[in-house]
Amino acid sequence: MLFRQLFEQETWTYTYLIADPLTKEAALVDPVLETVERDFKLLNELGLTLKFCLETHVHADHITGTGKLRELTDCEGIVPEHAQVACASRLIKHGEVLHLGTVEIQAIATLGHTDSHMAYLVQDKTKTDPLKVLTGDALLIRGCGRTDFQSGDAGTLYDQVTQHLFTLPEDTLVYPGHDYRGHTVSTIGEEKQWNPRFVGRNRDQFVEFMNKLDLPYPKKIMAAVPANERCGRMLASV
Amino acid sequence: MLFRQLFEQETWTYTYLIADPLTKEAALVDPVLETVERDFKLLNELGLTLKFCLETHVHADHITGTGKLRELTDCEGIVPEHAQVACASRLIKHGEVLHLGTVEIQAIATLGHTDSHMAYLVQDKTKTDPLKVLTGDALLIRGCGRTDFQSGDAGTLYDQVTQHLFTLPEDTLVYPGHDYRGHTVSTIGEEKQWNPRFVGRNRDQFVEFMNKLDLPYPKKIMAAVPANERCGRMLASV
Repeated sequence: MLFRQLFEQETWTYTYLIADPLTKEAALVDPVLETVERDFKLLNELGLTLKFCLETHVHADHITGTGKLRELTDCEGIVPEHAQVACASRLIKHGEVLHLGTVEIQAIATLGHTDSHMAYLVQDKTKTDPLKVLTGDALLIRGCGRTDFQSGDAGTLYDQVTQHLFTLPEDTLVYPGHDYRGHTVSTIGEEKQWNPRFVGRNRDQFVEFMNKLDLPYPKKIMAAVPANERCGRMLASV
Repeated sequence: MLFRQLFEQETWTYTYLIADPLTKEAALVDPVLETVERDFKLLNELGLTLKFCLETHVHADHITGTGKLRELTDCEGIVPEHAQVACASRLIKHGEVLHLGTVEIQAIATLGHTDSHMAYLVQDKTKTDPLKVLTGDALLIRGCGRTDFQSGDAGTLYDQVTQHLFTLPEDTLVYPGHDYRGHTVSTIGEEKQWNPRFVGRNRDQFVEFMNKLDLPYPKKIMAAVPANERCGRMLASV
């Protein structure tokens, strides 16, 4: 399996490139508008065909590159079910599996940061390597996404992280949507042991903690959410 | 093998953590002073014993974290032979191999960016995974280190990259010291095919190109080089 973590500096967003080296089919998860040219160039250099652009959720901090990538390629733009993104090619449900040759990408419902959110479990079926899970903004390294806007819900986040992610094998590699401390990867075992948002807190204590965070709104939210509901296309070109 | 790429935001430096999960012995390659606390915390959370702090070279853009890590742990501070770093625990030569349990780290001379520079080839001897090579500032993703100060030499860089790195297996993963475009990893095959500094240029053309780059000096060079010659310790505490 070809697997690349790519970094967008302004919003500290990680985009993931996943591909089958034999069939050359590829997916991008959470592409960013500003880095579409970089990612498109890389796809071409590696001889890959972009089959899927996947969103973990409707982002509030950056504008998706999916709309632009759909103009440049024949990829499908796939968003989690219940997301208010009418322009998406299609929605993806919890448990649904996408295929890139022998590589499987399985959607895992991880709501709570927003009211539509999927993590993506990635595995090359021909290998016995540890699983990889792209956790978007649900589970971060030693942290988690905020739950105070976009119909977020702290109790739901607690339930879905503990029931759908912390039940994965301990050696599953955790690749988040962002990391503001310069970590790039963790494991499920590490997060169960060291994530300060979850360790030592039951559901009620987690909800109380999250509801008191009082964070400033993301700088780009007023532009990003409406744009992402249009697959990152600006109003004039929709 | 445990392998982590860590990112320092101010100078866009990648630090690498390598460890044997069984013996818990670990090495850090190119730690940065400002992120020593983060890295020390991670070592402790993972239950690792820091055995080696390795430098690829005497950096001009950031101050090494090795001095501080040697105060916090019993690690050896190891620098490439010919480096003017009198405080180092010891020097490492081309071809020399360090061991962390079943993990081997082999030094590969890659001079030219500076007059002392090692890449480090990393392999878990119990696995058949592709090799990993940490290339410091010699070979970057679609680029290479500058050669216009610290006794750099473009012809030497061309010789050592083409003879010591481009001769590695094509699927060897290339982990650089920096990447300013948000790439995190490449392969030797990709760089041989797409690196614009090397592709289509012979040695003379490469030297001519590098000698015309006319880049501004790194912001921190006047502080970083003298500090790194003292293992990152400030003058007062040496």
